[in-house]
Formats: sequence, C-alpha cells, structure tokens
Amino acid sequence: MNAEPAQPWATTRWFNSEPLTLEDLRGRVIVLGTFQMLCPGCVANGLPQLQRIEQTFNRSDVAVIGLHTVFEHHAAMTPTSLEAFLLEYRIGFPVGVDAHDDPAGAPLTMTRYELRGTPSLVLIDRVGLIRFRGFGHEPDLALGARIAQVIAQHDVGVTSAENSVKAACVPGEGCQ
Amino acid sequence: MNAEPAQPWATTRWFNSEPLTLEDLRGRVIVLGTFQMLCPGCVANGLPQLQRIEQTFNRSDVAVIGLHTVFEHHAAMTPTSLEAFLLEYRIGFPVGVDAHDDPAGAPLTMTRYELRGTPSLVLIDRVGLIRFRGFGHEPDLALGARIAQVIAQHDVGVTSAENSVKAACVPGEGCQ
Amino acid sequence: MNAEPAQPWATTRWFNSEPLTLEDLRGRVIVLGTFQMLCPGCVANGLPQLQRIEQTFNRSDVAVIGLHTVFEHHAAMTPTSLEAFLLEYRIGFPVGVDAHDDPAGAPLTMTRYELRGTPSLVLIDRVGLIRFRGFGHEPDLALGARIAQVIAQHDVGVTSAENSVKAACVPGEGCQ
Amino acid sequence: MNAEPAQPWATTRWFNSEPLTLEDLRGRVIVLGTFQMLCPGCVANGLPQLQRIEQTFNRSDVAVIGLHTVFEHHAAMTPTSLEAFLLEYRIGFPVGVDAHDDPAGAPLTMTRYELRGTPSLVLIDRVGLIRFRGFGHEPDLALGARIAQVIAQHDVGVTSAENSVKAACVPGEGCQ
Repeated sequence: MNAEPAQPWATTRWFNSEPLTLEDLRGRVIVLGTFQMLCPGCVANGLPQLQRIEQTFNRSDVAVIGLHTVFEHHAAMTPTSLEAFLLEYRIGFPVGVDAHDDPAGAPLTMTRYELRGTPSLVLIDRVGLIRFRGFGHEPDLALGARIAQVIAQHDVGVTSAENSVKAACVPGEGCQ
Repeated sequence: MNAEPAQPWATTRWFNSEPLTLEDLRGRVIVLGTFQMLCPGCVANGLPQLQRIEQTFNRSDVAVIGLHTVFEHHAAMTPTSLEAFLLEYRIGFPVGVDAHDDPAGAPLTMTRYELRGTPSLVLIDRVGLIRFRGFGHEPDLALGARIAQVIAQHDVGVTSAENSVKAACVPGEGCQ
Repeated sequence: MNAEPAQPWATTRWFNSEPLTLEDLRGRVIVLGTFQMLCPGCVANGLPQLQRIEQTFNRSDVAVIGLHTVFEHHAAMTPTSLEAFLLEYRIGFPVGVDAHDDPAGAPLTMTRYELRGTPSLVLIDRVGLIRFRGFGHEPDLALGARIAQVIAQHDVGVTSAENSVKAACVPGEGCQ
Repeated sequence: MNAEPAQPWATTRWFNSEPLTLEDLRGRVIVLGTFQMLCPGCVANGLPQLQRIEQTFNRSDVAVIGLHTVFEHHAAMTPTSLEAFLLEYRIGFPVGVDAHDDPAGAPLTMTRYELRGTPSLVLIDRVGLIRFRGFGHEPDLALGARIAQVIAQHDVGVTSAENSVKAACVPGEGCQ
C-alpha cells in the first residue's frame, strides 16, 4: 500500500464539471484515470473501465475523474477534439485537461504523479493519500478489490471528550 | 486522521528487548508511549494504560513500545534508575531510551515527533504512518476505538496477476 | 464474533424518546445497555460507561439505548421511580422499560436476549446482528475496540449493474 | 448484506482435495462457485472467474471451492466425466460433487442454498455467514469489491482481560 500525499492537479480546462481540486473531493475516494483520446488502450480498456467503476460504486463514496494527459500528437488532441470525443463516447464523468509548460512535452500533472504513459489509474483515499498507481490495464477483479478496500477505510469518528493534560509534564513548565 | 510517515527513533539503550526500529515492527500497529519515570501522570495513567493495551490486543497485531524521553531532572532519571523502575512496576514491554544531542535539553526522538511533554502516545499503522498523536491522558474508550480502527486497516492483499501494458502508450515509444 | 439476529424488544414505556424498535435504528450500530436503577454495578460502572460511549462516538454511527430490566424489587423500581432516577443522573439517551408476562419474574427482552443479570451490554451491528454480549463490567479499552470494529464494517455499497443471467442454466428451463 | 449461516455441504466425492467442510475453512473467506460441466455460461464465465479469483487473492484469506451441482443430463455429467473435464480445463481448486436424494432431481446442497441454477456463486465470510449469493454472471469489478469487503472484516481480536462481574446483579442471587 502506497501512502504518499497526492499532488495538486494542474489543468487548463474541465469538461462535464466546474474546475475540480483534490480538496473539493476530500472525504470521497478518487479514481483518477489518465488517458489520451487517440491511445488505443485507453479507448478499449481504460475509459470503459472508468465507466464501469462509476456504475458499480456509490457516487457518495467514489469520484471518477478523467485527466487528458497529452504527450504526443498535440495538434490532434486539442480540447476541441476532446470535447467531441467525450460526447461521442458518452463519457459523463468530469474530465480535466492536463496543463503543459513545454507545449511539446509531457504535461504537468502526469509528471508530478510520475506516470509512465496512458492509460494510467491513480487511487486516492478519503484523506488525500495515493493508495495505488497502475499503468496499462489493471484487471477488474483486482481493481474492484483495491477500490473497496480504500472505501472501507472510513474514519470511525472518535471524540476524545475527556482528554486531559492535568497530570502531564512539559519542558520548562514542570508537571501539573 | 493523520498520515505522515513516522520518523526513525534515536535511542541509546533498550530494556526488555534487543534494539528495535520501525522497520522491525512493520506489519504491526505500534503504540508508542513516551514517559519519564518521575512524571506523575505517566505513572498514574500512561504506563498502566500501555499495560492494558498489551493485554487487550493480540501481540501479532499490536506492538506496545515505551520510550523514556527525559527532558528534566536528567541526573535522577538515568538508565540505571530506569532499569530498577521497570522492574518494580513490572513493565514487560520493550522500552527504549531516547537520545540527546544537548544533554540538558529535550531528547531527539521527542523533538522529531513534535511531542509536547509526557505522557504522550503515538499510534503508527502497519505501513509506518502516524495515525494519532496524543498528549496527556487519552480515555480508554476513545483509544481502544482508535487502535481497533488502525488494526482493522489490514491490507486486503490483491495480486494484479493479469496486469498488462500491451495496449498502452509511452512518451517517446508510441503505443503498443 | 457472534452473528445471530437481535430479537425484537418488548417494552411498556420509553423515556427520552418516542418508542424505538430495532428497525428504527437500522444502519447504525446499537449499544444496548441493560440495567436496574438499584443495581450498584449499573450505577457505578454500566450507566457512566454508556454516557461515555455517547460522547465518544458519532450519533450518526452509534445509538446508545438503555433498557430497564427489572427482575427483583419490582415495587421499588417502577417507571415513576425510574423517571426521577434518569433525571437526577442526567441520563439523556433513550431508555425503554422491559415488559413482563410474569410480574414477579425476569422481563421479556432480558429473557429473549439470554442475559444473566445487570449490567449487561449488547452490541448490535448495522444490519441487526448481535456482535457482542457482555455481563458485568467490560473494560473501556476492549469495549471501545469492539464498537469501532463494528462501526468500521460499513457496507461498501456495490451495484452489480451488468449482472447477467444470459448464459445460465435453470432446472426445467434448460440453458439460455 | 446477507447474514444467514451457510448450511453444511452434502457431497459424494471431491477432486483436487480431501473432503472439505465449512468448518475446515473457518477463518477464511469462501468463494463457492457452483457449476455443471456442460453449462455454457459456467465454462465461458463462471469457472474462469473462479480461476481469476484464486490468482488475485491470498490463499490464506480466500478459499475458492467448486461444487458440481448436476440437475440435468445426469448420465452425461458423471464424476468420471467431471474428472476429465477438470483436468482438461486445468481447474486446480477443490471441487465437490453435490449429493442427490432424488437421482433425477436437483442436488441437495444446491437446494439447501436455494440456488436457481448454474453458474451460481456464494460468498461465505470468515465466521460462516453468507454475505452474497449471485446467479449468472456477476461482473468482476463488483465481485472483486464484494470479496475485498468480506476479507477486510477481519476480527480485530480483543481480549477482555479485566472483565469483572464483581458489581453485578443476578436473578435469585442478588447483587455482589
């Protein structure tokens, strides 16, 4: 199990949603699926899997988010093309467009998340930690199990009502 | 829920055990209780609570570790004194002696963990993340719940046997 | 871990609440504490523990319910006496009065739940199964852990959207 | 979530294992897959899914068990035929042969479990309760999530070391 904090997203546009940040989704499990609209494995495997995830889990528990991480054929995968693609493939979950500082290179969020290519999938837990990072096709059986495990790690919600420091010692203050 | 990685321990001696590191205990939940042998709240509350924790949870799940974090009366709380104290109070769990770079100041591990004083309690999960940090007396009911929650977050153990990158795209390599 | 379904409650009156049933509380963990107002262990241990439970856990997760199971000194522990007792001891959670068919014997719910005496504590999970039954004083540390474990067993909420019986065989109908 | 106790299995033979009972597997999650060797949906979907389950989860957590529940073409699906089938399809997990009292009717275990046909899948938790019962094809994503949820419900293992009935009242014995 990984446990590093997820880095902020750098995006230029969003489809199917207002702009979204990790903080907006805090409390829910995030399934972040990165893709390129002209990547065959994304169209055949990655995106349909994201759609199945959206249908299988409660939206109050799981947020499915797409991220268009263009690192090649930049001129062919513009936001305008992406918009038509999302419409034709009936992709209804929020999709962000990953930002570039080098217009010909790999985009910023993809680089921050150290993703090798597309499709990639990142599983972020309710408190913002990365719990899984996959490249290529992760089988549904294993992925369903990983998502359920992260969903199940719901905070029990404990209040330390009586916590007392009455009998404690503090440097420079002595013991009370 | 906290989630930062626990820092390494800096210790000069150990009682009731060979020297222990976080890595030695990986896979178990660690209840790290810091104390000073002349701190009244430690003797009245902190240490008996650690003993109850040891009796309540399976040792295969939970490791109770004491840490002697002397920040005052250094001459009165030497390792020799501590050894007699542990014997008289029948404390059988491993106890490390926190190291100092400034012999008159707060010890190193206490400083790294940003603990305010004694008794303190730090709950570290199976993968080495800090999930709770308490100062003074945390009530048993809340603490039992916190420990159980961290125990319950056992890795489900998923193998992605069929993971395939056959249909993936990689920068500079194209799509396969 | 026990797992038998909790039997319905048979009550004649309720304090601090409208009459409550198991079904009303479905989805929450129920901590059912049985007591008699003149039972010393109930006053010293059982009832204060129930109050601590109410303060420690979220009310959306845990419902603390008292049940007055009078099996002796019936004339001294009437509902009228109980009402004054609850007021004086500032007990704010719902309390039901266990019903009798034999006015001099043990009450109905206590018998159905096979409880030995007072105080007793029954832990019922979100789907109505009994997960723990204790008699006398259960230490806070162990009880906090037991409650947290049952809280944590939240249904992940899986929808089998694509479930298909297209390729199944049924007796008398053959295979489709 | 279902929660009824799983009924005992009635079997006449076992392949790939000594005869197995629910008790033998207590402590592990059981995925019981029922099939007929001449059922197309079993060969196409049910049995390969069971093989994927075996590869995805730890065997210390999950036991995959097949059950040959013949309710038609009895003469064509004898244990001798089944043995060859299991060999050819490289099915290595334990497979029991469901027993009949009516040689021409539905077998005993299938009837006890109220299964509609083949393939069916029953998910039994670590303490022997049925948590899911599916008929036909359950998608991998949902099934992986269901299995993970049941695996994750590991008993925390709490010892009530100090449990005391010192201050309790018992019918006919008074209060101590």
